[in-house]
Amino acid sequence: MSPPSVCTRFHIALELIGARWSGAVISIIFKGAHRYADIKAAIPGINDTMLARRLRELESAGIIERRVLATSPVRVEYHLTEMGQELRPVVDELVTWAHKWIPLPEAASA
Amino acid sequence: MSPPSVCTRFHIALELIGARWSGAVISIIFKGAHRYADIKAAIPGINDTMLARRLRELESAGIIERRVLATSPVRVEYHLTEMGQELRPVVDELVTWAHKWIPLPEAASA
Repeated sequence: MSPPSVCTRFHIALELIGARWSGAVISIIFKGAHRYADIKAAIPGINDTMLARRLRELESAGIIERRVLATSPVRVEYHLTEMGQELRPVVDELVTWAHKWIPLPEAASA
Repeated sequence: MSPPSVCTRFHIALELIGARWSGAVISIIFKGAHRYADIKAAIPGINDTMLARRLRELESAGIIERRVLATSPVRVEYHLTEMGQELRPVVDELVTWAHKWIPLPEAASA
């Protein structure tokens, strides 16, 4: 029997959604935030540089898509693609685990 | 209705298992590697400094435990605690997702 080794695709996937704030961005879009300002407001501690970078990375990976709505003024929204939607069970299982095992911090901290 | 916000515990959980190599370490212990050398051999690209740090962090978080066996010479093994074992559904769902959506790299790369 060959020794176990790490699944490359699992590792790549975790690098992608485990990057700081990426999971938060994905989970908040699941919760219904689609506009940049709403996503930013929902994630304490994130700054514009980081949020813009994560949105670009997630779009480039195919997990979210940027929609430009033909409103006046033009409105931009971020939505999960099918690939992104299928992260739902991962997010749900991690939420379940976190609620069982991770204590709430005593006070808000950076 | 209040606007959505990121679940703090979800965010903490993802910071923990999403830290570079942490998920790989957890998944390889699930696969049956328990000794330092076996864990290291299973994760291409990880170095001793990083592996030792991740093992300490995961132990400190309560996800793995370090067992010192009274053999001669003394043998050290790393095992998942109950908290760690319960990450199984998260890992399984992410593996499933990765196998569907993440293409295999053409060649091994750092």
